[in-house]
Amino acid sequence: MKLSQGYWQTYKEIPNDAEIPSHQLMIRAGLINKTGGGLYTYLPLGLRSIRKVEQIVREELDKIGCFEITMGVVTPGELWKETGRWDVMGQLMLRFQDRAGRDLCISPTNEETVTDLFRKTVKSYKQLPVTLYQINTKFRDEIRPRFGLMRGREFTMKDAYSFHENKDCLDKTYTEIYNAYCAIFTRLGLEYIAVEADGGAMAGGQAKTHEFQVVAEAGEDTLIYCAESRYAANVEKAEAKRSVLNKTSAQDLKLVDTPNKSTIEDVCNLLGKPQEESLKALVYVAVTDQKEEIILAFVHGDDLLNEVKLQNYLRANHLTIGTEKHLTEAKLVKGFIGPKDLKQKVRVIIDSSVNLEASYVVGANQVDKHYQGFVVTRDADKGFETADIRMSKSGDLCPKSGKPVVVKKGIEVGHVFQLGDKYTKAMNVTVLNKEGKGVTPIMGCYGIGTTRTVAAAIEQHYDKDGIIWPVAIAPYHVYFGMIGKADETFALANEIYKELNAAGIETILDDRGQGPGVMFKDADLLGLPLRLVLGERDYKEGNMLEVKVRKTGESHKIHRSELVTKLKSLLESLK
Amino acid sequence: MKLSQGYWQTYKEIPNDAEIPSHQLMIRAGLINKTGGGLYTYLPLGLRSIRKVEQIVREELDKIGCFEITMGVVTPGELWKETGRWDVMGQLMLRFQDRAGRDLCISPTNEETVTDLFRKTVKSYKQLPVTLYQINTKFRDEIRPRFGLMRGREFTMKDAYSFHENKDCLDKTYTEIYNAYCAIFTRLGLEYIAVEADGGAMAGGQAKTHEFQVVAEAGEDTLIYCAESRYAANVEKAEAKRSVLNKTSAQDLKLVDTPNKSTIEDVCNLLGKPQEESLKALVYVAVTDQKEEIILAFVHGDDLLNEVKLQNYLRANHLTIGTEKHLTEAKLVKGFIGPKDLKQKVRVIIDSSVNLEASYVVGANQVDKHYQGFVVTRDADKGFETADIRMSKSGDLCPKSGKPVVVKKGIEVGHVFQLGDKYTKAMNVTVLNKEGKGVTPIMGCYGIGTTRTVAAAIEQHYDKDGIIWPVAIAPYHVYFGMIGKADETFALANEIYKELNAAGIETILDDRGQGPGVMFKDADLLGLPLRLVLGERDYKEGNMLEVKVRKTGESHKIHRSELVTKLKSLLESLK
Repeated sequence: MKLSQGYWQTYKEIPNDAEIPSHQLMIRAGLINKTGGGLYTYLPLGLRSIRKVEQIVREELDKIGCFEITMGVVTPGELWKETGRWDVMGQLMLRFQDRAGRDLCISPTNEETVTDLFRKTVKSYKQLPVTLYQINTKFRDEIRPRFGLMRGREFTMKDAYSFHENKDCLDKTYTEIYNAYCAIFTRLGLEYIAVEADGGAMAGGQAKTHEFQVVAEAGEDTLIYCAESRYAANVEKAEAKRSVLNKTSAQDLKLVDTPNKSTIEDVCNLLGKPQEESLKALVYVAVTDQKEEIILAFVHGDDLLNEVKLQNYLRANHLTIGTEKHLTEAKLVKGFIGPKDLKQKVRVIIDSSVNLEASYVVGANQVDKHYQGFVVTRDADKGFETADIRMSKSGDLCPKSGKPVVVKKGIEVGHVFQLGDKYTKAMNVTVLNKEGKGVTPIMGCYGIGTTRTVAAAIEQHYDKDGIIWPVAIAPYHVYFGMIGKADETFALANEIYKELNAAGIETILDDRGQGPGVMFKDADLLGLPLRLVLGERDYKEGNMLEVKVRKTGESHKIHRSELVTKLKSLLESLK
Repeated sequence: MKLSQGYWQTYKEIPNDAEIPSHQLMIRAGLINKTGGGLYTYLPLGLRSIRKVEQIVREELDKIGCFEITMGVVTPGELWKETGRWDVMGQLMLRFQDRAGRDLCISPTNEETVTDLFRKTVKSYKQLPVTLYQINTKFRDEIRPRFGLMRGREFTMKDAYSFHENKDCLDKTYTEIYNAYCAIFTRLGLEYIAVEADGGAMAGGQAKTHEFQVVAEAGEDTLIYCAESRYAANVEKAEAKRSVLNKTSAQDLKLVDTPNKSTIEDVCNLLGKPQEESLKALVYVAVTDQKEEIILAFVHGDDLLNEVKLQNYLRANHLTIGTEKHLTEAKLVKGFIGPKDLKQKVRVIIDSSVNLEASYVVGANQVDKHYQGFVVTRDADKGFETADIRMSKSGDLCPKSGKPVVVKKGIEVGHVFQLGDKYTKAMNVTVLNKEGKGVTPIMGCYGIGTTRTVAAAIEQHYDKDGIIWPVAIAPYHVYFGMIGKADETFALANEIYKELNAAGIETILDDRGQGPGVMFKDADLLGLPLRLVLGERDYKEGNMLEVKVRKTGESHKIHRSELVTKLKSLLESLK
């Protein structure tokens, strides 16, 4: 592309609604344009990056024998009614009726459509396993769309679905796709972590699920990671162990005055105890099958409770924090709650990292009173349970290597998930097995947010001046600018421009006649891997051009005759 | 793709709702699958063809400097309200509201979105002309979706939009895109005709518009075509001349009895006159700006009236056929209407091919009476008008070459159209011209129905056994079957399969172990350009394989060592 004939503009202003770097940079670098709330047009340069992501995804999936199809963006409501999801999908799914009054929706995901296709086209175990995927437009009617392509309403996703006769076969495909995902994100040039994720209520104990997270400050997910063992898990699920343990021995139980000291910090300060020698109480209400239950949970004073773990342990449908009303109901004294002398029976869960034989400071269930020297096995009211309900944190010990873990922020760009028979059962799908008997196949599903991946790549690769594209998904490889107005310079620039493109080095020519200031600013903002400059004077002195590596800032003088070779090897070194 | 591991089935049954060959064949050959009314999933082989069409379209548009973008499938209603089309688009446009109650629609076309994008990104004449295009999903809520991909509800279209400072610039881009379309349909391997189309009420006299029609029996459009001059026009617009003229001289006017003879055929038979020496009367009601007017139109007895021409001539909003009520109102006697002695003043339009000095048979405006020897200039009531209102037909004379034209049926797959300032004016778009003054740019729009093109290609290329793909858009090039069950045969087939694909000959291997009968039937149905067969016996005798050309049925024996060269040259010869 020549910028003189090109449809490309950059912008100095940061749009009001752009909170995170990728959103700001994609607008400012002329990659996307907002059409409406959560709706974007992909401009030529942005689209090129999106297409490169799509192509890499496609190649790696094709390599392992997946089949690409395209399902409708609009799907009939009747399919969603078969699985009951028409009623439970909520407002995220955009629904409407056609002129004949039939229910339709814009697919936020396609389990129903693909299962319907499967039952119409696959009849025998001989056709299994099969994995079908598409790269297509999705829509989720987010209540607060934001962050540009990161959480837009319309977006592009690769969604794949596999079908199997049994769990072994599903596990095999799951692993193949997991490995293909690793290959994809590696080729994309992204630092990613494949983390064990929480399967939620949907997944049985056997169902595997992993998230592929791009490491970036702006990430909405928190990850626990061990560089040694490569153990990685979403914090919601992570099982890293506490590194600081309470190794005190059992002391005498003592009721102490702690007037107005209702926080762990204040109480521990007052009593001169470290926080790991105290227990923090948290009150929740768990809803399970319409039944409400008050839960009293205890973790170390310096720990946080992990609500996802607690909810999963309780097999609850919902979990909410207890209100004043619930405290009153259970006769609990806010700020002074403990596991001894409860005035009313409530269900008590103590985190399993708590040393049941050591001494702790705990609330005494009386106003302005705590116990110290409290030992769980000796002093707690009977009937408590223990479970892993703490939130892993930096410095915890890896469950595999025993080495300290770190916390990273991640952007979820991919997800692999074993669905089991949820959809095939609901939609009455059977295939004939070897014995000629109809059996219900099981499924896996595998997503990659392709437009989101582009935004995530930018979150991971930018600086104060703009984007720093990984080579594989840069809209072009080289930003080629010229300084000088002589006709020969223009002619030479055009010649070099053609030569580079012919050699497969994707090059933009900035022939707009801007000064170096504007040109270099635009080049940095757009962030192609290399910036090549043809300066009239330099060139006259010895046929030299200057190339600057966007990522490192290093620059080299290159002789005209070596341009293609040198640029290629620089690009190669950046991969 | 190896069929043993492949996700592909063929079907013997013709689906109930499949009326035309392309629809039947695309279902039967496993290219598409129906999800709902007018909604289809593109299966792996169908998708490959669609992608090839898209890629050819993309390459030819990129070559002339168009820029690819992707606009949303969902667009905000507010944009459509700016141009007033929110109210006039009718039920074809699928509308709905998001969770916040904002109007949205699924774009059936994108003039508003692209004009909005333009006004946000282009400010100066220096950035003009610019042509933006996308290849994206569209939705039209057809009342009766049918014909598979030919008239589905969800489909894929390439839509392009150009912006210009003036008409000369628009004309230049229009011609470039017209030529790119010719290149596209030629590369696709389709017999097409670029026809002058009717611009309708929207277009001014100056606005150019052409349709690109793929010639096929199942076409819904009728085209007038001259092989000599390459003149081509949609019959709605065609101006071919009558070849059979009425060269009689003026005879005496004579009132004759024609009891119960109210059709042209009966009257001419009775009077012993050829139909070209009679005038046929047609009564219409034209609505123009709420005003209704009865129109009495005359064409030769053997001609049909062209309603589009009549409506355009009258500059009417609507045209409907006159009912009994209108005939009574205008005191016209059904079956005996003529241009003389009208009992009440009505507007009379006589087709301009009528020889005003020759003798004709016409109705006498009395029951059971006609005139013969009627001469328009001498006998007609005063005040009639003449205009080209006849329908061109086979045997007419080309307006360019004077040679007889033929009638063809066509499927409209592309359309180029000069829009003028309709959208830019309504949406208050201006750019600064050289003098720094804000001017309203003008637009062109250019569509290609990419999924429809695949269906049209099949309508043009099939026989009783199945599809006959043009090489450029065939899902694969070669259907490679094997006869024999020996391990060596399998190994050899796999070796050849790899070799062909590595050489760029896209090959499917049928290793399902089916007999030749099923295999050859499937191969013919799918219709890849070449069918290659490895037969154990043939091969043993002299390392020979057999190739059959799907289009011509010719077959050749080819030595193993010459396979790649020979297949390549066969494919080349089919292009």
